[in-house]
Amino acid sequence: MEQNNLKDLLMEVASGRADVTDAMDKINNSGFAELDFAKVDLAREKRNGYPEVIYGEGKTAEQIVGIMQVMAQNKLNILGTRISKEKFEIIKESNQNAVYFEKARCVTVTNHEIPTTESYVAIVTAGTSDMDVAEEAAITAETYGNKVERVYDVGVAGISRLFNRLDVIQGAKVVIVIAGMEGALASVVGGLIDSPLIAVPTSVGYGTSFGGVTPLLTMLNSCASGITVVNIDNGFGAGYSASMMNHL
Amino acid sequence: MEQNNLKDLLMEVASGRADVTDAMDKINNSGFAELDFAKVDLAREKRNGYPEVIYGEGKTAEQIVGIMQVMAQNKLNILGTRISKEKFEIIKESNQNAVYFEKARCVTVTNHEIPTTESYVAIVTAGTSDMDVAEEAAITAETYGNKVERVYDVGVAGISRLFNRLDVIQGAKVVIVIAGMEGALASVVGGLIDSPLIAVPTSVGYGTSFGGVTPLLTMLNSCASGITVVNIDNGFGAGYSASMMNHL
Amino acid sequence: MEQNNLKDLLMEVASGRADVTDAMDKINNSGFAELDFAKVDLAREKRNGYPEVIYGEGKTAEQIVGIMQVMAQNKLNILGTRISKEKFEIIKESNQNAVYFEKARCVTVTNHEIPTTESYVAIVTAGTSDMDVAEEAAITAETYGNKVERVYDVGVAGISRLFNRLDVIQGAKVVIVIAGMEGALASVVGGLIDSPLIAVPTSVGYGTSFGGVTPLLTMLNSCASGITVVNIDNGFGAGYSASMMNHL
Amino acid sequence: MEQNNLKDLLMEVASGRADVTDAMDKINNSGFAELDFAKVDLAREKRNGYPEVIYGEGKTAEQIVGIMQVMAQNKLNILGTRISKEKFEIIKESNQNAVYFEKARCVTVTNHEIPTTESYVAIVTAGTSDMDVAEEAAITAETYGNKVERVYDVGVAGISRLFNRLDVIQGAKVVIVIAGMEGALASVVGGLIDSPLIAVPTSVGYGTSFGGVTPLLTMLNSCASGITVVNIDNGFGAGYSASMMNHL
Amino acid sequence: MEQNNLKDLLMEVASGRADVTDAMDKINNSGFAELDFAKVDLAREKRNGYPEVIYGEGKTAEQIVGIMQVMAQNKLNILGTRISKEKFEIIKESNQNAVYFEKARCVTVTNHEIPTTESYVAIVTAGTSDMDVAEEAAITAETYGNKVERVYDVGVAGISRLFNRLDVIQGAKVVIVIAGMEGALASVVGGLIDSPLIAVPTSVGYGTSFGGVTPLLTMLNSCASGITVVNIDNGFGAGYSASMMNHL
Amino acid sequence: MEQNNLKDLLMEVASGRADVTDAMDKINNSGFAELDFAKVDLAREKRNGYPEVIYGEGKTAEQIVGIMQVMAQNKLNILGTRISKEKFEIIKESNQNAVYFEKARCVTVTNHEIPTTESYVAIVTAGTSDMDVAEEAAITAETYGNKVERVYDVGVAGISRLFNRLDVIQGAKVVIVIAGMEGALASVVGGLIDSPLIAVPTSVGYGTSFGGVTPLLTMLNSCASGITVVNIDNGFGAGYSASMMNHL
Amino acid sequence: MEQNNLKDLLMEVASGRADVTDAMDKINNSGFAELDFAKVDLAREKRNGYPEVIYGEGKTAEQIVGIMQVMAQNKLNILGTRISKEKFEIIKESNQNAVYFEKARCVTVTNHEIPTTESYVAIVTAGTSDMDVAEEAAITAETYGNKVERVYDVGVAGISRLFNRLDVIQGAKVVIVIAGMEGALASVVGGLIDSPLIAVPTSVGYGTSFGGVTPLLTMLNSCASGITVVNIDNGFGAGYSASMMNHL
Amino acid sequence: MEQNNLKDLLMEVASGRADVTDAMDKINNSGFAELDFAKVDLAREKRNGYPEVIYGEGKTAEQIVGIMQVMAQNKLNILGTRISKEKFEIIKESNQNAVYFEKARCVTVTNHEIPTTESYVAIVTAGTSDMDVAEEAAITAETYGNKVERVYDVGVAGISRLFNRLDVIQGAKVVIVIAGMEGALASVVGGLIDSPLIAVPTSVGYGTSFGGVTPLLTMLNSCASGITVVNIDNGFGAGYSASMMNHL
Repeated sequence: MEQNNLKDLLMEVASGRADVTDAMDKINNSGFAELDFAKVDLAREKRNGYPEVIYGEGKTAEQIVGIMQVMAQNKLNILGTRISKEKFEIIKESNQNAVYFEKARCVTVTNHEIPTTESYVAIVTAGTSDMDVAEEAAITAETYGNKVERVYDVGVAGISRLFNRLDVIQGAKVVIVIAGMEGALASVVGGLIDSPLIAVPTSVGYGTSFGGVTPLLTMLNSCASGITVVNIDNGFGAGYSASMMNHL
Repeated sequence: MEQNNLKDLLMEVASGRADVTDAMDKINNSGFAELDFAKVDLAREKRNGYPEVIYGEGKTAEQIVGIMQVMAQNKLNILGTRISKEKFEIIKESNQNAVYFEKARCVTVTNHEIPTTESYVAIVTAGTSDMDVAEEAAITAETYGNKVERVYDVGVAGISRLFNRLDVIQGAKVVIVIAGMEGALASVVGGLIDSPLIAVPTSVGYGTSFGGVTPLLTMLNSCASGITVVNIDNGFGAGYSASMMNHL
Repeated sequence: MEQNNLKDLLMEVASGRADVTDAMDKINNSGFAELDFAKVDLAREKRNGYPEVIYGEGKTAEQIVGIMQVMAQNKLNILGTRISKEKFEIIKESNQNAVYFEKARCVTVTNHEIPTTESYVAIVTAGTSDMDVAEEAAITAETYGNKVERVYDVGVAGISRLFNRLDVIQGAKVVIVIAGMEGALASVVGGLIDSPLIAVPTSVGYGTSFGGVTPLLTMLNSCASGITVVNIDNGFGAGYSASMMNHL
Repeated sequence: MEQNNLKDLLMEVASGRADVTDAMDKINNSGFAELDFAKVDLAREKRNGYPEVIYGEGKTAEQIVGIMQVMAQNKLNILGTRISKEKFEIIKESNQNAVYFEKARCVTVTNHEIPTTESYVAIVTAGTSDMDVAEEAAITAETYGNKVERVYDVGVAGISRLFNRLDVIQGAKVVIVIAGMEGALASVVGGLIDSPLIAVPTSVGYGTSFGGVTPLLTMLNSCASGITVVNIDNGFGAGYSASMMNHL
Repeated sequence: MEQNNLKDLLMEVASGRADVTDAMDKINNSGFAELDFAKVDLAREKRNGYPEVIYGEGKTAEQIVGIMQVMAQNKLNILGTRISKEKFEIIKESNQNAVYFEKARCVTVTNHEIPTTESYVAIVTAGTSDMDVAEEAAITAETYGNKVERVYDVGVAGISRLFNRLDVIQGAKVVIVIAGMEGALASVVGGLIDSPLIAVPTSVGYGTSFGGVTPLLTMLNSCASGITVVNIDNGFGAGYSASMMNHL
Repeated sequence: MEQNNLKDLLMEVASGRADVTDAMDKINNSGFAELDFAKVDLAREKRNGYPEVIYGEGKTAEQIVGIMQVMAQNKLNILGTRISKEKFEIIKESNQNAVYFEKARCVTVTNHEIPTTESYVAIVTAGTSDMDVAEEAAITAETYGNKVERVYDVGVAGISRLFNRLDVIQGAKVVIVIAGMEGALASVVGGLIDSPLIAVPTSVGYGTSFGGVTPLLTMLNSCASGITVVNIDNGFGAGYSASMMNHL
Repeated sequence: MEQNNLKDLLMEVASGRADVTDAMDKINNSGFAELDFAKVDLAREKRNGYPEVIYGEGKTAEQIVGIMQVMAQNKLNILGTRISKEKFEIIKESNQNAVYFEKARCVTVTNHEIPTTESYVAIVTAGTSDMDVAEEAAITAETYGNKVERVYDVGVAGISRLFNRLDVIQGAKVVIVIAGMEGALASVVGGLIDSPLIAVPTSVGYGTSFGGVTPLLTMLNSCASGITVVNIDNGFGAGYSASMMNHL
Repeated sequence: MEQNNLKDLLMEVASGRADVTDAMDKINNSGFAELDFAKVDLAREKRNGYPEVIYGEGKTAEQIVGIMQVMAQNKLNILGTRISKEKFEIIKESNQNAVYFEKARCVTVTNHEIPTTESYVAIVTAGTSDMDVAEEAAITAETYGNKVERVYDVGVAGISRLFNRLDVIQGAKVVIVIAGMEGALASVVGGLIDSPLIAVPTSVGYGTSFGGVTPLLTMLNSCASGITVVNIDNGFGAGYSASMMNHL
């Protein structure tokens, strides 16, 4: 509860305008809807600036539908991540306006329009196989009202591909770099721009790529400054943070 | 080389105003000073928005002095990190206006003034022992012209200490959370703010903290959104990225 | 063999009331039933206070049925863990009074009634996906005669959900906290209670959660005191230890 | 803030007996003393049942003295852990009644007497080298008012040493088992008792003991039930949790 | 080539009894049959005392049949390990006297009889789930002419089960201890016997058992002397080494 | 862009023979074909001496076909690796002259003939199961115009098999050693030759072979000099590097 | 307690020849001397065939002296390992007949003569730096009455050095192979002998040798059969097990 | 022993020109000098093309002097690596013509002149701190008769520094890339050249660089082809392999 609201509330109690029991409820209850299997955080958009996101992994289609209904009732925009096509088929039945992005494995429902930024987020990938993670980042950023530019398959093995698109990357307010294998692209891009760079390691590779641990380590140890890192394959997290920065 | 500059240069060559050899040099040479032991990147401020930083670890005091001289000649502001007090004593002799920050282990020299932001970066630590890393982040951000608010020793074991300073944290444009041991503070703060959060794991702890690997993993896997992470004990990197975001 | 019993036995031998060969058997044989594939520990309830538990992983339904028969003959209450629905269908045929808990993947058979405690064990989870492990803990604790309160989906990303149920948690004699991803919930709860806290990391998460290693490390390094930890996904172990403590 | 207190406070505001600003302070301020380098948690004893503990690692003697003064002023009993003999010499000067336990590396100051339990905590070690960690656990438990029985050097390589002291171990309300190398002692003891067992891995060993990781893993995977685990060398944590359980 | 044989050969060359080219062949050629996909080591029984073993993993049934034919032609006894039932069905067709051991996943063909030792190898397991690895060890030892005593399911959680069979274990010339989870059984047995103990960690367990790494580490760090260790689930290796020792 | 070409281009601009916009394109554009899902590097053969290789893992058959069409149009020889038989069936339909190597899982298309070296690359494997990786190396080297000698199944357990083929190995200009399990073969061969040795660890093995990490570590720590190492199972990388060396 | 002894004891109780309390003591007390800091296992020679060994690491010279006195009083031969020269100087003062082996860092005291075996243990090392561990193994084996042959510095990089000494190795009853770096020597020797091989990894090496983990993994995954492994740098363990085998 | 030599020897034996015992010696003895502490491989230059190198780590100055004497007597050129300045002072006394390279920590003695190649090895480093490892590589290559070009401090954070020296790198017959931190330089260079690239990870960095493991993983997973890798900080190994390739 914010300090100003707390003060106002106490003033109302002091003046007799508010009831003690109601005040207690307001202080304790931070606004969430209780389902059998989940407590849906309805105040999150107010608190964090963005509505709660439905992480689909490990939830049944029915549970996802339940959460979406509560959110729709509260006119919240919906973003569901890591949702398989099979689950979406079930979700679709009770949510006619739900949209599915197959590469990104995301579902969105627009319950109220939001404006799109003029500045853009550049999403840069090293290879073709990093595209799914990139799309999760892109859909997340777009859902939160960001203009997105995609610069895909520009890994350092053929560095001229990168230089050819450098103007698009340098023009972005925020840059997301997504790479598997050795993840060197983050360092190279980081040395060429003056905007924040969010690096996303992917599980693309084999042997000692260790499911993405290698590009993660590469990115954490980058000799270029201005790079921060998210979890392996966490396209959503990168898109979310990029949106926060792009809205600054 | 930026596209516009390249075009201009080629136009000059075409018109005979520029010499072919000079043009080649300009395209190839990106502006650095060659020392015996280092190539000092002088164009970095133009390219990245910030002058090159001197990472003191593994460099002798003499090497640091040499790099500082080149930077001073080019009127660049200087930030040296991971510099011991012993090295600073030697540096001080040839740099009368060098300032040392002992907890942060940083040296700064102001060769031209830069304005300070109105918005601020909040630097939040879990415990007393995280303070050195926090100061490296703070001095870095301040050197790059950012207002900084320090909120130290508010770890989750006594969560009311955190809530008492929540208004300062929520008022920041960017928040840095610094924690060792289990690093849970990042998740808790991340759930309470709507601005970008940079998490810094520290090597504070023993046994299975594994020199900071545990809080690093905690921060990478945070259930709160909007968190990006830098290397263990990398106060500089957090301060640098925070500055980039605070200037957006 | 307990000291008193040993003394009694030797006295009986000394007085001729007991036979030497029988005495040797009694000293050596601590009371188990020998099956082809297992030695069922029948004295365990006497020695440890609880009957042996059937760990279903890697045992065939037939082996489980065999062990259950021996236990039933000895009037022992039965708890089987990690038993799939398929195995239960076979078990059910020869055990009409066997009960199956699907989320918990547990089978119980009550062969003698035991009283339920007045004090309760609170079982707290961070997310919806931690529920299966939580139910294994809950069924275990209930089978051993403990009153259980479930407080599910109160992870730190929306910390007010936790505070809203804090009275239930603070009223418990023992608290079990179950969390995957970064596992920060254990530290936050640990800082708010004065009863023992058993932390259970779960394999919920992806990338650097490393199948539950990350929340395990978080919990082992908690800055809050009074926390002890069990193996990843070990709901049974937490429920068992909580029962021991709740009965103190 | 507890619910009852909150209700009372709001009632006082409603009746005009309490001032709005004061009420806000009370809700926000959870009772800690702010030093330059630390926020000392004074309400912890009320909240957690035990006063805050001073973790000496990474704190200067001066900082420790400062925290002790604040605690003494509040009549709190003091326990400082991981404090070297050198630091204690300085602490001693301003705290005449401070007591030092060299093997345990602990400092205690008794500012108010507390009763000792009748039931006891048994502390069992595998070898001579585990004794320092054991003493940290013992001093912690004793400082918090627990009777302690020490059963040292009874590792499984000579299992009769253990059996000879089994009655003492079986008579305890809580058992702490401390072992390095392969840590097998925890499983053996766990199979012989019906009280909660807290296992503490130590960094005793070489090669693949990996600084205590091996006994930690052993203890987490114990085939015996009723075992919970704390961080490597965390004698304090074991003593603290044992005290909680012994006071149930 | 052994020194004596080499000397004899050179003598024969010197005396003209042997041809130079033949001698070169003998020195170079150590006696193996070259198949398309393998070089079958026929001299191994002479060199190592045991015929080559067919490791079935990653070989097709056809390749196994081919190797068996060459061995049969050379009157070598055959042991094939890690052979699935499906592969055996194919092998059986062209090897009427091949015998399959399902739990052990081994195939044997007796092409010449060998005597059985009077001394025996004791094979001790902690749990029911370790039985497959134990049977691989047992069949290996028996195939190489060793008497074997099986002592299964005597893990330390119910230590009296072990003591009841201690005479069998203590009477063995060599003891193999097979355990998963935390692997503590090896240390306990090691402290009670005066014969060599070969410890085999198994991949039985979950979470932090890490597929057998935990019992492996336990066994390598055992506080009991006289224990040597083989790879995870390597029943064959244990049976082979035990046979070597039993034949000393 | 090479220095000579750059100079020529600038001269043309200076003389008016070249247009400014065209020159910019040439400097920026390093010759690749842009597809929807990939940027095919057509200049690679000029820059690196070899055409781009199609890494089939994570690409659909359709994407592979698309890339092959662009390469065929540019008369580039094609090598596709990690392509399953299923994908090849689809590829075959639109590429009649595509050849599939099943063990190697490679596809090749010869769009222009290249000469074969007189010197050869020896490819040496420890066991039968390493053959797939060996074939990937062999097909790669052969596709790039190298003569290859295969020396398979000569692991150190029967070292005479190796010595028997030593002349072939010692006669090679470059040697590739491929081994799983403990990977000792690389050290033994390395001590017997005076040509460069490329070591390839394979994921053959179980338990603590950790999917090839063990032979990788063995090879990196070899006591023999002249050994360099590639990623686990990276037959292609070894064949490619060997080709580079064989063409020196 | 052995079964025969137990039966005898019970017979004596039954016949009145033995007292009940004495019998209880005998069953419980397995013969150790209780010091302040240790329980010295005096029955170990009877139970395990060898007297207890004093592991010097983490024990003070005074503690070691104390244990040696108890052992001397019981006429036990003494072997102390991991004892620095500094500690030995103190030990020497009260043990005039103590002998120090500097490379092995062992102390021995002969309190009763034991015969030496005719068969011998061969101790084989890869390099000069493995010699300290080798000497620990050699002194251990010699102290326990074994003839030892040392074959040092015969690593696989110059494999002819090994072949030159092969007759000595092949003539041994038991072979110990000691190697750091990549540890390949164990596999090569294992393929050439028909006696048990104990492999000892050493911490010799740098970078990815990881303090001996690499040769440990090499040895556990050896393609040669008949190899068992002990902990890194565990010369004592190898010498002890070799002695057990050599006495079979 | 090479095949031709073996045949000749046997012919001599057959013809009576050679004695049987002498022949045996020649077959067995591959030419090494036996010291107390080492077997110096004198035939190595003949067998491997290069004389044995003295790895100084873990050898005393006296041992190094001894080996150098034997090598000098055999007119072998000497290269000693990882030799501290302190050890060199002692070595210098008995080797007046020994030369010390301080950064490289190498000692060389030229006992016979060797020609220098016309083609050169380029040694490229990312930062100033990688220079020591680079010099070890450079001195190694130069000692073995290679022309070397040093291109230092051209890390990817300021990529124009690299491009400015690209012609030197592209002109080399073999390229060594040396980098710590994230090691991305290897991939970038690898994408720009058509000669073999040997990558050397260094232990430069902190936190998650894990002593060089991170750049090692980066290099093993490089998306650029033609890269092979050596152990962390292994400048010698890279220089040695580069020399082999440069002499092809």
